[in-house]
Amino acid sequence: MSEQAYQQLMARVRDASVVQSISWLLSWDQETMMPAAGAPHRGKQLALLAGLVHERLTAAATAELLQQVETSAWLKDAPAHARTNVAETRRVHDRLVRLPRALVEETARTIPVSQHAWAEARRANDFASFKPHLEKMVALKRDEARAIAVGGDLYDALMDEFEPGARIAEVAPFLDALVDGLVPLVRAIGAKGNPALPWAGRRFPIERQRVLCGALPTELGLRPDGSRLDVSAHPFCQRIGHGDVRITTRFDEADPRGAYFGVMHEAGHALYEQGLDPAHDGTPVGEARSIAVHESQSRLWENLVGRGLPWWRHHYPLVRALFPEALHDVELDAFHRAINRVAPSLIRVEADEVTYNLHIAVRVRLERALIDGSLSVEALPGAWNDEYRRALGLTPPDDANGCLQDVHWSCGAFGYFATYALGNVYAAQLMEAARAALPMLDEAVARGDQAPLVAWLVDKVHRRGSIGRGARIIEDATGRPPDAAAFLRYIKQKYAPLYGV
Amino acid sequence: MSEQAYQQLMARVRDASVVQSISWLLSWDQETMMPAAGAPHRGKQLALLAGLVHERLTAAATAELLQQVETSAWLKDAPAHARTNVAETRRVHDRLVRLPRALVEETARTIPVSQHAWAEARRANDFASFKPHLEKMVALKRDEARAIAVGGDLYDALMDEFEPGARIAEVAPFLDALVDGLVPLVRAIGAKGNPALPWAGRRFPIERQRVLCGALPTELGLRPDGSRLDVSAHPFCQRIGHGDVRITTRFDEADPRGAYFGVMHEAGHALYEQGLDPAHDGTPVGEARSIAVHESQSRLWENLVGRGLPWWRHHYPLVRALFPEALHDVELDAFHRAINRVAPSLIRVEADEVTYNLHIAVRVRLERALIDGSLSVEALPGAWNDEYRRALGLTPPDDANGCLQDVHWSCGAFGYFATYALGNVYAAQLMEAARAALPMLDEAVARGDQAPLVAWLVDKVHRRGSIGRGARIIEDATGRPPDAAAFLRYIKQKYAPLYGV
Repeated sequence: MSEQAYQQLMARVRDASVVQSISWLLSWDQETMMPAAGAPHRGKQLALLAGLVHERLTAAATAELLQQVETSAWLKDAPAHARTNVAETRRVHDRLVRLPRALVEETARTIPVSQHAWAEARRANDFASFKPHLEKMVALKRDEARAIAVGGDLYDALMDEFEPGARIAEVAPFLDALVDGLVPLVRAIGAKGNPALPWAGRRFPIERQRVLCGALPTELGLRPDGSRLDVSAHPFCQRIGHGDVRITTRFDEADPRGAYFGVMHEAGHALYEQGLDPAHDGTPVGEARSIAVHESQSRLWENLVGRGLPWWRHHYPLVRALFPEALHDVELDAFHRAINRVAPSLIRVEADEVTYNLHIAVRVRLERALIDGSLSVEALPGAWNDEYRRALGLTPPDDANGCLQDVHWSCGAFGYFATYALGNVYAAQLMEAARAALPMLDEAVARGDQAPLVAWLVDKVHRRGSIGRGARIIEDATGRPPDAAAFLRYIKQKYAPLYGV
Repeated sequence: MSEQAYQQLMARVRDASVVQSISWLLSWDQETMMPAAGAPHRGKQLALLAGLVHERLTAAATAELLQQVETSAWLKDAPAHARTNVAETRRVHDRLVRLPRALVEETARTIPVSQHAWAEARRANDFASFKPHLEKMVALKRDEARAIAVGGDLYDALMDEFEPGARIAEVAPFLDALVDGLVPLVRAIGAKGNPALPWAGRRFPIERQRVLCGALPTELGLRPDGSRLDVSAHPFCQRIGHGDVRITTRFDEADPRGAYFGVMHEAGHALYEQGLDPAHDGTPVGEARSIAVHESQSRLWENLVGRGLPWWRHHYPLVRALFPEALHDVELDAFHRAINRVAPSLIRVEADEVTYNLHIAVRVRLERALIDGSLSVEALPGAWNDEYRRALGLTPPDDANGCLQDVHWSCGAFGYFATYALGNVYAAQLMEAARAALPMLDEAVARGDQAPLVAWLVDKVHRRGSIGRGARIIEDATGRPPDAAAFLRYIKQKYAPLYGV
């Protein structure tokens, strides 16, 4: 009987997942294909689908089935995937039912207004005009956190949406260790400076960049009949359903790095989606675990593989042949150094892999303080600049280059930033373990064979789906709980020779 | 009270329309963008949406509201749009509820099997292998027609899905008049024969065809920020929602006619969708009336305008400049004649505008007989060949070039074919009326100004939405009920000088 209830529950969950997947296609289309004038109708479509997902997951019948399964003897001896599916259905269900409908609607109404105000404020470099909107958003997210946390930590309640089971009490020391390890290194590298880009002022025709980037997804192991690559304003990866995962990038004629590493990054996300277990499609066990684990896959391919010498031993001759005008006098070493330039900077999305986590640490400290009430929105710009001085040795000249640079807070994504740093750290720890398991890994990469690493990731990470929280997946894959050590080792080993520090 | 019930009813109708519009996007994506391996998941998504639309339109609450509004005093004096919306909601509701669920499911299961069998049978030129599938489909559609018709004509019940309110008793004489008028003309033209295509063996680079075709939609009046053009195996037009209508075409390096007239045709459909009244978006009055009215818009732009001399006086210099290798020695008159070649042929989708309706008349006669039971599937190939001899003077060498050529019957679309001929006839009648209303129409077209004709069509056809059945919209726009006369006049005036007949 209880197994039957479980199957009925999963039928409801799969049904909601199909509805959700429809909204993914609509979102993908909105960013890549939709004519601008279609936006209002698209809003109606997405709102209707969001309501349908909510209705399915919070229906009384769902709650009854859930309780029936949870209290059953059957569940105790049920397979791990079934226990995970039940626990995850409970987690999502509770998050949804704990939120008062009025709060959900108020937040939904506020986000577009706030995001628009943010875009205007950034453009005009006018924090004052954004301040009331951010104050309202912080208040709404505090209300949301209180409703979900039921007495627990407010910030954890918000992080849980992106990184289920993560606790700031564990994440914060982790970020502190990154800052402690990176700040001196960044200072030392900053003192060395960088030469001009060897291809400065030259052109990389976009048609040839398309050819170059178009071959990457298949080379990394994405099925050509199960994926596609398009162009959008901001690169992203979107799974539509089993057998259909899509990535985007953008092209700049003056510099191919953005498009190329954009594809490497998004293809890493797409490999994760492709590697999920189809037998569990539509249930939590058939879904990617979390944003941080996702980011570990994208950063691994973008940085740990894609900015490494083995990769370029194979790929640089091809790239050079495609762009002879720009690269004829640029040798492999100079190219490798140019794609691994480190410099403290003010803008997160332009940061290199060494300084990137410092940008994140700043944001996590500040948003924690905004949510626990120890920092006012009024005081945010000053606090931001203080943090940048401390972490990166730079003072933003204005708020557009300071606390107005990211979209996240304007749309209420508090608790998201930490996943970027966790992803970087998980990627380094996974890569160390993969090297240990695959002694010829660099040789395979250097002859253009990515299959061994893909297979290892599928086995250790992708097929796990949502069994265990993110940190546990990394621990099981690498043999120890995640910490900052592997990342710091990777960074020091790579950059000490490059910069002589 | 009753107006309130009407508003509630329309809220349900609009809600179903948004769900329906989501499935339009999914279908468009399936034909243009979706990786092949995404097909099974897409099937789940579309099935779920179809269920949601059905559920919304047939819910007990919908039926109660409908009855409440229909029996109210309010409706008698309600504006025309409200009365149309109620009547159309009733028509769609009754079609849906009259169909037994078992029949709907059986038909849904049968269509993909039958369509697959048809594709195989056509490829292998093996009618016998398709025969049992077609027999089953005819039986299912007869059951469907009986359920819907409630004692009325079976074929009308099927046509009603595509051309609401059409009656075969009115359409058949219409088709007979076309056949009577066209057969002698086609014989006479056939006796004259055609010279070789003046660009035979030359190339039209696809990149330049893209440039040429890419400019057409805007030139015809489609908003660039509200439409897009893509490539698909079969050209089509799909509205996604207000402000978002999409068309496709396909390219052939050896001959630009397919792509060019494909865009003209689909842009005609798209103009209709763009011209609908946004104030009634999501209700029947804000929707295109029928397939035949739709086809009148596409054929008007493709043939009546797009294959006319005024259009080419403006456009031929541009086309010739784009393809100098292929057209340097082809003068306007020769080009105009080449795009207006008439020849009796066996394949409908390759037919010219003169012979096209003969292909349709054959199909309508045969499918009527299949549905009323006077023709067996067994006897179909022979009957098909007899009809082709009579109408076109040709005998198909085999069934692949005969009764196996169209996809329609394999997917149960009985009652659809007549809309093609109605569309051609409506287009000619509308064009005559437009010429009378806009005496300088040819001059405007010849200087590249399509705005007067677009505005006339928006006013007379597009803004009507679904008020009145298709024939009534044509009557109101042209001052007389539709008949074959305008089409026959158009054909004779155009082709008599071209062929000296």
